Amino acid sequence: MERRLKHWGWGYEDQAPSATQLREAAEGIRARFGFGGEVEKPVHLEEVELRASRLKKPSAFGDLFSDDHYERTAHALGKAYRDVVRGFYGRFENPPDLVAFPKDESEIEVVLGWAEAEGAAVVPFGGGTSVCGGVEARVEGPVVSLDLRQLDRVLDVDPTSLAARIQAGATGPGLEDQLRAHGLTLRHFPQSFEYSTLGGWIATRAGGHFATLETHVDDLVESVRAITPRGTWESRRLPGSGAGPSPDRLLIGSEGVLGVIAEAWVRVRPRPEFKASVGVEFGDFGEAAAAVRAISQAGLYPANCRLLDAAEAELTGAGDGSSHLLILGFESADHPVDASMGQALEIARDHQGTPGEPRTSPPTGRKYPDMEGNRPVGRKDGGAVDQWRGAFLLAPYLRDTFVACGVLSETFETAITWDRFEEFRATVMETARRATAEACGVAPDGPGSPRISCRLTHVYPDGAAPYFTVLAPAIRGGEVEQWDEIKAAVSEALIEAGGTITHHHAVGRDHRPWYDRQRPAPFAAALRAAKAELDPAGMLNPGVLIDPV
Amino acid sequence: MERRLKHWGWGYEDQAPSATQLREAAEGIRARFGFGGEVEKPVHLEEVELRASRLKKPSAFGDLFSDDHYERTAHALGKAYRDVVRGFYGRFENPPDLVAFPKDESEIEVVLGWAEAEGAAVVPFGGGTSVCGGVEARVEGPVVSLDLRQLDRVLDVDPTSLAARIQAGATGPGLEDQLRAHGLTLRHFPQSFEYSTLGGWIATRAGGHFATLETHVDDLVESVRAITPRGTWESRRLPGSGAGPSPDRLLIGSEGVLGVIAEAWVRVRPRPEFKASVGVEFGDFGEAAAAVRAISQAGLYPANCRLLDAAEAELTGAGDGSSHLLILGFESADHPVDASMGQALEIARDHQGTPGEPRTSPPTGRKYPDMEGNRPVGRKDGGAVDQWRGAFLLAPYLRDTFVACGVLSETFETAITWDRFEEFRATVMETARRATAEACGVAPDGPGSPRISCRLTHVYPDGAAPYFTVLAPAIRGGEVEQWDEIKAAVSEALIEAGGTITHHHAVGRDHRPWYDRQRPAPFAAALRAAKAELDPAGMLNPGVLIDPV
Repeated sequence: MERRLKHWGWGYEDQAPSATQLREAAEGIRARFGFGGEVEKPVHLEEVELRASRLKKPSAFGDLFSDDHYERTAHALGKAYRDVVRGFYGRFENPPDLVAFPKDESEIEVVLGWAEAEGAAVVPFGGGTSVCGGVEARVEGPVVSLDLRQLDRVLDVDPTSLAARIQAGATGPGLEDQLRAHGLTLRHFPQSFEYSTLGGWIATRAGGHFATLETHVDDLVESVRAITPRGTWESRRLPGSGAGPSPDRLLIGSEGVLGVIAEAWVRVRPRPEFKASVGVEFGDFGEAAAAVRAISQAGLYPANCRLLDAAEAELTGAGDGSSHLLILGFESADHPVDASMGQALEIARDHQGTPGEPRTSPPTGRKYPDMEGNRPVGRKDGGAVDQWRGAFLLAPYLRDTFVACGVLSETFETAITWDRFEEFRATVMETARRATAEACGVAPDGPGSPRISCRLTHVYPDGAAPYFTVLAPAIRGGEVEQWDEIKAAVSEALIEAGGTITHHHAVGRDHRPWYDRQRPAPFAAALRAAKAELDPAGMLNPGVLIDPV
Repeated sequence: MERRLKHWGWGYEDQAPSATQLREAAEGIRARFGFGGEVEKPVHLEEVELRASRLKKPSAFGDLFSDDHYERTAHALGKAYRDVVRGFYGRFENPPDLVAFPKDESEIEVVLGWAEAEGAAVVPFGGGTSVCGGVEARVEGPVVSLDLRQLDRVLDVDPTSLAARIQAGATGPGLEDQLRAHGLTLRHFPQSFEYSTLGGWIATRAGGHFATLETHVDDLVESVRAITPRGTWESRRLPGSGAGPSPDRLLIGSEGVLGVIAEAWVRVRPRPEFKASVGVEFGDFGEAAAAVRAISQAGLYPANCRLLDAAEAELTGAGDGSSHLLILGFESADHPVDASMGQALEIARDHQGTPGEPRTSPPTGRKYPDMEGNRPVGRKDGGAVDQWRGAFLLAPYLRDTFVACGVLSETFETAITWDRFEEFRATVMETARRATAEACGVAPDGPGSPRISCRLTHVYPDGAAPYFTVLAPAIRGGEVEQWDEIKAAVSEALIEAGGTITHHHAVGRDHRPWYDRQRPAPFAAALRAAKAELDPAGMLNPGVLIDPV
């Protein structure tokens, strides 16, 4: 553990911007948005007061368990705005009593056995990047955070089947580094890529790089191995099967309630040799969405097909706010993608889109986003696509700055079928605008009002996944209440209008009230019964997804 | 119910070949294979003796329940060889005591409620085309067969999202006829297409038309609605979601043990306007398989990519037995597919394949396989591809003739990753040859020996789905024991070598011993607990997938 993750925000402890940088940022924010205040400073780690640990660190297991102040603090919260702002102010309300660092499966079993005997809950922890309260156990009893990041190896590579067996704690860069030696890549790039882990992706059905086809990690999973309190759950490596309901699909998205994912065989691929990308501008958002629908229904399978509305394009610097921007990308390890790009652009033009100059890549050897030190950056060769990519990767870092500068920021993402898309988007945007204005005590429109923007992150023949960004003036010290109010209003709107409470950010604890209404009641009963069978003590990540009986 | 399904075999009662046709077939079979006997005649429906019904038909529900002799007989068995041969000889060992014909969901609820009160099991029944004992309740107590074929309507079409809400009892031709009015198609064409139903496909994870991407019906399902003994299970219509484990994926493949699938929203598409197909001959099967692997790993997504070994090609009349045949097809509603076909053929040539002349289709307006009366037929414009297609569709009919002529016929299908494919195939072929020879009392090789052939039906970047056909001399009256012996030996080989007991034919009762070893034990425990919660009486299709606690 040489380099420490920040105990309250995104990235490493040593990555904080300087006081001058922050002051300049605050000025820039005020000038641009008409809100945001003076810079405040986070509570230092040393000043953080944690509830005393209710578990005595067992002496029998060497360094498997830790009661270290930093570790307890750094494992207390996820990375939702709600979490970051609490961490910033030093409010760590539910710190784990111990943090466990297993080095192998037998040590996972030790932790589960010990915790069950102690009556403690166990919260599996990968990168800790949950944005829905997935790693914060809000329970009365004692809690062990189970940090899996020492299980970080690529254990096997099958170059014939294009598959690899990877431990659950491997981070994005960690597993890509190891796969690169074999000329292979997983190409699963969630925004949290730098820190989040394979196990976390599988447990939360993370959305990745691909805007079509393999939109979620689900489809990249060939088999999963998990440790449950009642034995090891391991599926066969199969390219496809029809033998009963898929065992993997019950673990994928289970958020730790059924077992601890230890490793998985995942489908990898050769690095793409052929790439093409382009930005397409649209004057009308409805036309742009229609173009996206037509492209997704044409069976063209772009790797990237992200539609940024004008406000979102401006926010990321990819546009000037005068037009909506579609980022289109195709890639292949096997054949040129110009024909597919040409067909997609023909559709875009049919919908009054104005394409920029497509950029076609020769082989680059690029493996994952360019890095500066440990921070991903956009490519520097200019253009709207690069600008968007850079902003996308830096967004989680920027949020820490927003917190310091008194800006409330939050995102909501969902999915809806095309027939309901336009009305759905309008309703959610309007609800977000009103609820945010009310929570912030400002007018819904005009200078200093909330900024609400929308992008489509993933697209399907039958619908799309809209992603909403909210920026607004924070009320210092009241951010959590503001956030809760906005969250409730927008979530209500999403669920009422037929969407899903999450397309790829999981349910955790923060989405529970709406998830409970969304899921079929008999499915909830089935899941609860399954959990009671495998985890009779109800110790595994209590509070996410379901309440144990 | 004007036209009656055959009470023992494939198709309608009035579709039996004439005595002359059968005699000629028997002669042809003997000449070609060196085995097969004189033609025997099936036991007439009137001569079939059924166990007396143990349930008194309730008088309160009009014509909802039937104790008719034909209905009880026709619902007693599926369509495995093991079933067809028993039906042929009039051995209906486990007839349902009553058959229910609900016209809507409320009548499904009536049947479940009545059966639970009577202590009867309920077996959901669609087309009755199960080849794994899925519709034959082998239990001590009384049984109601729940025939869903009156729920046969397309209820809603959403042309914007390309989705349709369809009742579970709609057959392939039935739902395609209704979708055609909207210019849409599901394009899910299992071999059982004529008779099997949407609900049956979903309950069994049926494999369809597409050799890549949407290989199973799973991926065509947008949401499912099922009636469980403890309430209605209905998921939201969502193009994608990350909210917990997928509720749909737990119902898909559940084979009726959790609830009765009543309807589903499925993803449909415009009819393909552009098509290309070609047969490619290979001298070496390993090279052919390598070509298939390369095509599937290149991201070309052919609609059809079936590799027939030389014996299989000869069997279907698509080849003369001197070479292996790859049937390649591309289709699109949006753009010409010549480029994709060209790339696939380049890969095939790199692997010493010799392509025939590709046939590229202009718009045809063809909706599903050409029909003659109610029987699908191959296109008649000649060529290996057509020959294969015709044989594929007629195979289930031909099996009835085999039974009459004393030929044992059976198929096994599975999936395996590419790294193990070659050894796997060799082992399974050899096991099938030896076990069949032993069960039939003939030499494993030489004239009159079993015919074992293999095709790949579906392909994936990480593996393939091999499908094995066995033809051998039946021992009159001992066919079931022969079949059981061969089934056990081959299934053992499949499971031992790492495959799945089924890629798309479901588990039912016949695959249970091997499925029980294949699935992760904690998953079995979870599924059993889920069933106990939703079906506490254990009444739903007892014996498939799991044993109720």
